[in-house]
Amino acid sequence: MTSAPTITPKFLPSRHDLGVVAVGFSGGQTKAGVDAAPMALIESGLIQQLEEDLEFNVTFDGQVHAYTDIMPKEDPDYRNMKRPRSVSAVTWQVSKQVYEHAKSGKFVLTLGGDHSIAIGTISGTAKAIRERTGKDLAVIWVDAHADINTPETSESGNIHGMPVAFLTGLATETHEDMFGWIQKDQMITTKKLVYIGLRDIDKGEKKILRDHGIKAFSMHDIDRHGIGKVMDMVLGWIGSDTPIHLSFDVDALDPMWAPSTGTPVRGGLTLREGDFIAECVAETGSLIALDLVEVNPSLDIQGASDTVRAGCSIVRCALGDTLL
Amino acid sequence: MTSAPTITPKFLPSRHDLGVVAVGFSGGQTKAGVDAAPMALIESGLIQQLEEDLEFNVTFDGQVHAYTDIMPKEDPDYRNMKRPRSVSAVTWQVSKQVYEHAKSGKFVLTLGGDHSIAIGTISGTAKAIRERTGKDLAVIWVDAHADINTPETSESGNIHGMPVAFLTGLATETHEDMFGWIQKDQMITTKKLVYIGLRDIDKGEKKILRDHGIKAFSMHDIDRHGIGKVMDMVLGWIGSDTPIHLSFDVDALDPMWAPSTGTPVRGGLTLREGDFIAECVAETGSLIALDLVEVNPSLDIQGASDTVRAGCSIVRCALGDTLL
Amino acid sequence: MTSAPTITPKFLPSRHDLGVVAVGFSGGQTKAGVDAAPMALIESGLIQQLEEDLEFNVTFDGQVHAYTDIMPKEDPDYRNMKRPRSVSAVTWQVSKQVYEHAKSGKFVLTLGGDHSIAIGTISGTAKAIRERTGKDLAVIWVDAHADINTPETSESGNIHGMPVAFLTGLATETHEDMFGWIQKDQMITTKKLVYIGLRDIDKGEKKILRDHGIKAFSMHDIDRHGIGKVMDMVLGWIGSDTPIHLSFDVDALDPMWAPSTGTPVRGGLTLREGDFIAECVAETGSLIALDLVEVNPSLDIQGASDTVRAGCSIVRCALGDTLL
Ligand SMILES: [Mn+2]
Ligand SMILES: [Mn+2]
Ligand SMILES: [Mn+2]
Ligand SMILES: [Mn+2]
Ligand SMILES: [Mn+2]
Ligand SMILES: [Mn+2]
Repeated sequence: MTSAPTITPKFLPSRHDLGVVAVGFSGGQTKAGVDAAPMALIESGLIQQLEEDLEFNVTFDGQVHAYTDIMPKEDPDYRNMKRPRSVSAVTWQVSKQVYEHAKSGKFVLTLGGDHSIAIGTISGTAKAIRERTGKDLAVIWVDAHADINTPETSESGNIHGMPVAFLTGLATETHEDMFGWIQKDQMITTKKLVYIGLRDIDKGEKKILRDHGIKAFSMHDIDRHGIGKVMDMVLGWIGSDTPIHLSFDVDALDPMWAPSTGTPVRGGLTLREGDFIAECVAETGSLIALDLVEVNPSLDIQGASDTVRAGCSIVRCALGDTLL
Repeated sequence: MTSAPTITPKFLPSRHDLGVVAVGFSGGQTKAGVDAAPMALIESGLIQQLEEDLEFNVTFDGQVHAYTDIMPKEDPDYRNMKRPRSVSAVTWQVSKQVYEHAKSGKFVLTLGGDHSIAIGTISGTAKAIRERTGKDLAVIWVDAHADINTPETSESGNIHGMPVAFLTGLATETHEDMFGWIQKDQMITTKKLVYIGLRDIDKGEKKILRDHGIKAFSMHDIDRHGIGKVMDMVLGWIGSDTPIHLSFDVDALDPMWAPSTGTPVRGGLTLREGDFIAECVAETGSLIALDLVEVNPSLDIQGASDTVRAGCSIVRCALGDTLL
Repeated sequence: MTSAPTITPKFLPSRHDLGVVAVGFSGGQTKAGVDAAPMALIESGLIQQLEEDLEFNVTFDGQVHAYTDIMPKEDPDYRNMKRPRSVSAVTWQVSKQVYEHAKSGKFVLTLGGDHSIAIGTISGTAKAIRERTGKDLAVIWVDAHADINTPETSESGNIHGMPVAFLTGLATETHEDMFGWIQKDQMITTKKLVYIGLRDIDKGEKKILRDHGIKAFSMHDIDRHGIGKVMDMVLGWIGSDTPIHLSFDVDALDPMWAPSTGTPVRGGLTLREGDFIAECVAETGSLIALDLVEVNPSLDIQGASDTVRAGCSIVRCALGDTLL
């Protein structure tokens, strides 16, 4: 079924060079198990498929990073954030790892971990792509949630609900060990941020989305227009001359297809719609990085294997696998 | 997720006043358990959500009515109808309850019960809205079934398959204790009746729909056009200056999402489509009443809780809850 | 629900005459059980429904053919094909049975069996319709797979993955006992072949589809355009003046609706989409034959009954059953 993609990338020197970062981190939220996702994805054959079927030349250090050596000993709450120093340290490290791959012209695939790690991945690609191409990065955030709470608007204090706030500069911190390390050239603009799949937004987030005119396609929009039309609108908004980072939270999929995730919300994307989104973004030739996050295989066997398989499918589609 | 709706109602003096009627009645069909639905919906937190999240000022007498005091002692079949005097007595009483709320300008939410109770709810709102606004009521009937059998065309004799016939005057009775109480000003016109979700229609019903040119969108139409386009057609047909009563039979949803119902039919609406219908009708600002019927929680635990949850979701969407 | 269809057939003298062929054959692949499908479909009431509800005058010899008398004693692999003489002998016999029905002007319904039997059904109808109308047959092949491998491109050697290659002349054989019996007037043209539902295509098949410009609508196309638009394109491509043979592999449906099949592939058609396809083809009035194949009821009870029921639904829809 799988065959090598034929898309010519616009912002990468070669379509064959892929850097993989495996982030076994769960500190952006409270449920154990999401740190085991990279190993589950790899054990199900994902990297092998990328090499053999999609003909990628994969650079991967072969390890799922737990970042235990850089974890602070004490990490009390700060500004309502839980484990702020841990998440900051890990995402800073992830940012450097992703930056190295992206700077050298590789497509970067990051396997999470919870969604807080996108603070690292996107800051890394935003900086690298600016340096390589002089262009601002666009981000397509596929998620049931907007993850754009500031520490102040968040009810839970879990940082996996805040990455977009830190990445866009809506939330800032001066302490270097609590996201103060994020520099201007690592940030993204809300004008080139697009959401797909939203269906569980906090009140504070709704206000942020409205106040900043952020482009968001909820499940209601997908029902109204169909996913084909929605993708036309998403990609039309971004434009054809902008590098894209796709950050895919597996909870965007309906629990029927991806039950093994920390915060499942009913009424989500079908697997077909998830694959379709990834395929459409791949077709643009503008995609330069992909995060797959929030797979938590510690749930029931059936649900976990379905979710891992769905995650692999999304990754393959985003990396150019096609049906015909 | 949930936040107060921002729609300005066209036919209600305030968007905050909501009257709730809980009808624990199962006599329009033969399966026990559908009378327990209002309590299951309420226990799952529905009314509290309407008050707290959607900021409704709820008028509710706090009881699930069983109407045992008005139930006739003997109730033999008549004109092929099963329990005609019981259903007539209960729906007459429901009609008065609903009329009182609607006459005072409240949105009326009725929690059934089997679908026979719509004889009461719609006759109540049709009369009240005529008195308050001088306008005919439009009805959007979301259902796998058309429920438009006359006593003569019905094969089962169950009155939950006949409410639309009595409401439109296609079926009439002179005996006051057997629906003879329904007056002209409590009836609706077939011209402002629209079906959504039909997929199990009796032969006699097909003929009625054709002969009277009743607007109906079957599952086939939804597949052909998509639910977004279908809702455009539904609301275009009704027009923007007509008050709407939405009567939602949970069996319109596919059994995958709403299995705990008396007459499930495969190939139905997804929960997303059900919510979307409710959201679109809410957006018009013309909605003045909602029935949620045929939830039967006496089936298996998993199926019952899914169905109750789906029912609550439909109600919240119809009452203005939005994703963004 | 079911009522007699009102479509006037373009290429059949009467809309009432239906010939049924029950093919209990599993030799085109390796999993036992698919030969039991015709009996399971019949026992679930299918033929009775066609007679009573859809008012067909059914010609059926009353038996599920196992073709044991014509099966060769020895059947070693040849040109990578498994059981080539058995499949050739059975499909030759099926071809004659189908031809007889089609020649006499009957709609032909064939219940498989694995998809190799389409070598027999389509060669039979192609010849008969040419003789009766002078027209080339169009084929709509609904399947997760393209079944267009030649013996040389096939990895498995299972002939149920090759029928389209033999029917279009892309694969040929001179030995009469190994498909050499297929004559020019029994073949179809790739120009009037259309696929729907593809999602698991071998590399060799992708090349064949591209090289011959064969019209194919994958699941990606269905997600992009919606099934309504796709059917417009399918039927527009074929044109209104061409007789159609619909060959429906139940594995085109998602395993959620049709799990009991030999090679299930996720991300398939919903049952609603499957029914819709059948309904749309029926509406053209051009349909002259239907195969339903690859139901394998030997799997778990729940999955088998769902799959049999889905298969019956597809057949009824293709034979003119409508919702309204
Ligand atoms: Mn997320
Ligand atoms: Mn999420
Ligand atoms: Mn119903
Ligand atoms: Mn009903
Ligand atoms: Mn097949
Ligand atoms: Mn197949």
